[in-house]
Amino acid sequence: MYRLLLALGLLLSLSARAEEGMWTYDAFPSEAVKRAYGFAPTQAWLNQVRLGSVRLAGGCSASFVSPQGLVMTNHHCIRGCVEDLSSPRKDLLATGFVAPEPKDELRCPKVEANQLVEMTDITARMNAATQGLSGAAFNTGLKAEMAKVEAACATGPEVRCDVVTLFNGGKYHLYKYRRFQDVRLAFAPEFPMASFGGDPDNFNFPRYGYDVAFLRVWENGQPAQSPHYLPWAKQSVKEGELVFVSGHPGGTERKSSVAELEFQRDVALPYTLLHLSELRGMLREFSSGSPERLRTTRARLRSVENGLKALRGRHQALADPSLLSLKRKEEAALRARVTANPKLKASTAGAWEEVAKALQVYRPMLPEYRMKEAGDGFQSELFTLARHLVRAAEELPKPNAERLREYTDAQLPTLRQQLLREAPIPEELEVATLAFSLNRLRETLGADEPFVQAVLGREAPAELARALVTGSKLRDVKVRQALLEGGKAAVEASEDPMVVLARKVDAAARAARKRYEDTVEAVLKRSNERIAQAHLAVYGTTGYPDATFTLRLSYGAVKGWEENGRAVAPLTTFAGAWARHTGKEPFRLPDSWLAAQGKVPQETPLDMATTNDIIGGNSGSPVVNRDGHVVGLIFDSNLHSLGARYAYVPQTHRAVAVHGAGLLAALEHVYAAQRLVEELRAAQPR
Amino acid sequence: MYRLLLALGLLLSLSARAEEGMWTYDAFPSEAVKRAYGFAPTQAWLNQVRLGSVRLAGGCSASFVSPQGLVMTNHHCIRGCVEDLSSPRKDLLATGFVAPEPKDELRCPKVEANQLVEMTDITARMNAATQGLSGAAFNTGLKAEMAKVEAACATGPEVRCDVVTLFNGGKYHLYKYRRFQDVRLAFAPEFPMASFGGDPDNFNFPRYGYDVAFLRVWENGQPAQSPHYLPWAKQSVKEGELVFVSGHPGGTERKSSVAELEFQRDVALPYTLLHLSELRGMLREFSSGSPERLRTTRARLRSVENGLKALRGRHQALADPSLLSLKRKEEAALRARVTANPKLKASTAGAWEEVAKALQVYRPMLPEYRMKEAGDGFQSELFTLARHLVRAAEELPKPNAERLREYTDAQLPTLRQQLLREAPIPEELEVATLAFSLNRLRETLGADEPFVQAVLGREAPAELARALVTGSKLRDVKVRQALLEGGKAAVEASEDPMVVLARKVDAAARAARKRYEDTVEAVLKRSNERIAQAHLAVYGTTGYPDATFTLRLSYGAVKGWEENGRAVAPLTTFAGAWARHTGKEPFRLPDSWLAAQGKVPQETPLDMATTNDIIGGNSGSPVVNRDGHVVGLIFDSNLHSLGARYAYVPQTHRAVAVHGAGLLAALEHVYAAQRLVEELRAAQPR
Repeated sequence: MYRLLLALGLLLSLSARAEEGMWTYDAFPSEAVKRAYGFAPTQAWLNQVRLGSVRLAGGCSASFVSPQGLVMTNHHCIRGCVEDLSSPRKDLLATGFVAPEPKDELRCPKVEANQLVEMTDITARMNAATQGLSGAAFNTGLKAEMAKVEAACATGPEVRCDVVTLFNGGKYHLYKYRRFQDVRLAFAPEFPMASFGGDPDNFNFPRYGYDVAFLRVWENGQPAQSPHYLPWAKQSVKEGELVFVSGHPGGTERKSSVAELEFQRDVALPYTLLHLSELRGMLREFSSGSPERLRTTRARLRSVENGLKALRGRHQALADPSLLSLKRKEEAALRARVTANPKLKASTAGAWEEVAKALQVYRPMLPEYRMKEAGDGFQSELFTLARHLVRAAEELPKPNAERLREYTDAQLPTLRQQLLREAPIPEELEVATLAFSLNRLRETLGADEPFVQAVLGREAPAELARALVTGSKLRDVKVRQALLEGGKAAVEASEDPMVVLARKVDAAARAARKRYEDTVEAVLKRSNERIAQAHLAVYGTTGYPDATFTLRLSYGAVKGWEENGRAVAPLTTFAGAWARHTGKEPFRLPDSWLAAQGKVPQETPLDMATTNDIIGGNSGSPVVNRDGHVVGLIFDSNLHSLGARYAYVPQTHRAVAVHGAGLLAALEHVYAAQRLVEELRAAQPR
Repeated sequence: MYRLLLALGLLLSLSARAEEGMWTYDAFPSEAVKRAYGFAPTQAWLNQVRLGSVRLAGGCSASFVSPQGLVMTNHHCIRGCVEDLSSPRKDLLATGFVAPEPKDELRCPKVEANQLVEMTDITARMNAATQGLSGAAFNTGLKAEMAKVEAACATGPEVRCDVVTLFNGGKYHLYKYRRFQDVRLAFAPEFPMASFGGDPDNFNFPRYGYDVAFLRVWENGQPAQSPHYLPWAKQSVKEGELVFVSGHPGGTERKSSVAELEFQRDVALPYTLLHLSELRGMLREFSSGSPERLRTTRARLRSVENGLKALRGRHQALADPSLLSLKRKEEAALRARVTANPKLKASTAGAWEEVAKALQVYRPMLPEYRMKEAGDGFQSELFTLARHLVRAAEELPKPNAERLREYTDAQLPTLRQQLLREAPIPEELEVATLAFSLNRLRETLGADEPFVQAVLGREAPAELARALVTGSKLRDVKVRQALLEGGKAAVEASEDPMVVLARKVDAAARAARKRYEDTVEAVLKRSNERIAQAHLAVYGTTGYPDATFTLRLSYGAVKGWEENGRAVAPLTTFAGAWARHTGKEPFRLPDSWLAAQGKVPQETPLDMATTNDIIGGNSGSPVVNRDGHVVGLIFDSNLHSLGARYAYVPQTHRAVAVHGAGLLAALEHVYAAQRLVEELRAAQPR
């Protein structure tokens, strides 16, 4: 596909074209849409769709679809919740779930939903706070100011405030969200239907998944009111029609420097890919060991496989010389413009060189940082809890601005939810993943490295993992609560083996983090900020910022593409799903769908492809028509789009969604979820 | 470590220096050795050491160490044989094996040993055969001529003849070997001792492995005579002493073009690394399922882990910009010299561009080629046997020069041994690896690809793998013999499910091979031959050719190195092994070694590091002193040396060997292998 890029390179390079763009709501290119489609969203339209959009803090998108707090998202976004609500005797992941009444809706222990209510440009304030600083001082100053701004904004647990970096540091905004932590499951189909086709069909199209779930946000023991919501469209969406996607693309690197992209290609992605593929091999084999192992592992395995496939696609995009050749041209063009302007030349002096140098520093440091601090050496929920408890005891007594980011006041509701949630922690899986990661720790850093020696002593990874997991009492929320409330004294007195381990490695892990933050992160941030400011000075803010898991609006059309000279149609049907059923996983339709043959017309559209520019994080985004009414639900993109991290290619990149008509038809005729169907219909405009 | 390279770059770039070099015996730089060490091997010395050297056709090196056909190599080189000779009730891999008498030696079903008796330069003949040819015609002409030359040379099954490509096609030699297919196991230590430290210590040093095995070649029911052998040195080797390593380095890419190295970094190595790491994760978890699974999997797992670690090291070497920057300079220097010479300019016109273009063609083709033809989609011994039977039936009736390489007359003894050997094929492991690879096949090529559809139909990989493995009768040698001898009629009539599968996919697999050979391999070979000829014209043959699993001699010294400012001593001792014992795998010494404390002086040297330039394939190579007497046994190299595929760095690259003194001491005092010790002593010169 990247053969295309070369031809399109210069056209695409400097300004957004066609459907490209993940636009912030305050800078949506309504005029461009009008020129292309004869329709421009008004400010009222934009406000309504923005307030109807929802972010799931764990990394997904969603939307309000009724005034009673009903939220639509993907099944794969709340797969963890369905698993948490399951047990060996009640396997909701396998059977699906329909709450007959609101009171039967089940609380998801780990889910937080956010609604973006306010955006403020605070670039001037942030720049003032870091004026003249560089290196570690710049980073510290930036984080301290973030903590201050966020703390002042977050007036209660129901308010979430994030300082948001846009344009690689060219702009800083303060995003204020309404926060919901009582989020309940109203509807989930069977896992085999939500991810029909499994890993083989993931990122493929034509596609036949029903990756749908409904949640409801509650407040004070009642369904919350959501006056701003997206009503269900009365008209089904057709090929060629203009559609918008409102959601939270997780991250792109379209403005990254060539040095950063080469680092991704040569160092960061290979490291992560190797870790994930070995983990995948282990988890697949582990899950085949018993039905209970399968039950507790399949959601995790699916996430690992999804990540692996996505990152492999990214690596392949970067490994094709034509993409980097385009990026080199873009960078050279920017640098030529910058050099020609004495002010910009001065403000960016040495910036690109500093980026390259910081990455040279990072290269040998990355495995150590990832292993000791970033989780790769301790893949265990219990260890994560233990580390949080140890660090909370250390950090919370400090002044807000001096704490590690995740312990600042504005983050406390998230931290408390994470520490005090009632969710099962499957023991065998914990042992397996911890043993796996301790083994990786030893082989990555070496058996004789002091940190490794401190962790393992004379133990073998598998035996140590078992002793730690079975010996820890942190599975009990009361134990965690006591340690959280008991503070430093309680944590230091604890003899829980996982707490003891977290204590033992904390100084070295913090040191690895500090080395990384001071010598890599700080330099990259400061240099990129200088480059980004120059970019804005040269090209202005007519472009869109790289994705940062903040709310964006994209526009496009329902449209197929050409694959090796053959047309791929944009819509699939129920008939296609029935035809793809082989009876063998992952191509086995659940009984509910087999039974629905005859009840749902076979030509009913099921999934669709659109040209909207999206990326991971957009999962669960509503697709709306020009009325702002729901016509679909994003759940994936096609294989070509895996390169969208670095560039959008209009010819082949496609978003993949459940079609609104098929979504509703299955809800009604496959799942008999009449209450939800009526709620959606009642919410439609007269 | 590659920081060093940059500084050394220009010095190292154009001529071999210091201990660098894997020299062919007909061009050993005796004068350089004399200048450095005051000793030069004579022609008689070279002949003796060459004839004392042995190649194990499966991919290792070895040596004759007595006149009665006694062969020394590494345990890891014959781990497969020890496993083949084991059963659930007699686990030789766990217990080790000492044959009390020659008659108790056990035949290794898969091992072939070769002794290089003659080398002939046939460059002129090969060039004449391909004169004026290019592309597929060049490749076909080259292979046909190889088949002709080899067939004429191989006068019986005891003669093996290989046309050997040297200097990337700049030279062609005919290597004539004495072939031994009756190879028997005389001694093997316990697997946990042979690979003490396991994967964590692999490629590490200081090291404490006893990776030793003794075989014996037999002829006509008697131990074979081996008048040319390497006697055991009477003097133990010391730090700083000159030593030679005679063995078969498998492959290097030191003369490869930059385009080829970038292809390795971006495409080939990532593909293989991901495959291996997932396989590793699967096998580790699989092997933990039961003692029998562990018994049948540990050798395979160890090989996979070794390959993974080696390839990861290669990738890291290529991912460091300083190595490629050195290679770019070397290539630019050669091209400048070539351009300045009208004749060379004409003879290399377009050669580098053709290499780059062939790799662009290969890029999208590689996964298909690897999956359909090169084994990645069908990781199963039974499938490999089935494919050989199907293809032998098709190929053998053709004229010799028109057959696929592996079915030419000169290859028949190897093929027959492979098809007719009596070796167990563990069923559960077969099912697991075949299911793994079928799954990889589907995900790599896509669920809807016609080849995948033909293989899987409506089956799931795991179920299909089980049906194929349990349904096949190819485990029975008699069944295979009948199919081999029955030819095309028998193979076409076979209803064995594995044969049916091999038949079904053969046309498509052959087509993928032909596409690769005609459009990639042929172009690369021809262009590289032209570049290589120009290289020889410019720089002469004073250098050494890239390694090609042919016999080479390297020289160096017993020597440590500096690691982060700390000196690493070149010798380890028995005391070190006892200290490293934790009682937990892979740091658990077997009882025999624990019991030997007190019997062997603790300061006895166990392993050692030398500066010899070696690479994978050199495993099992004898280390000899200036008398040509054995002072050690190569079994590994250090982590730095993983980059030796592309360049040798004298400061840090080290070969790792079992020290001759420790080898003999353990044989005598740990294993009481008195008969072998006496045989070695009796063979020492008076």
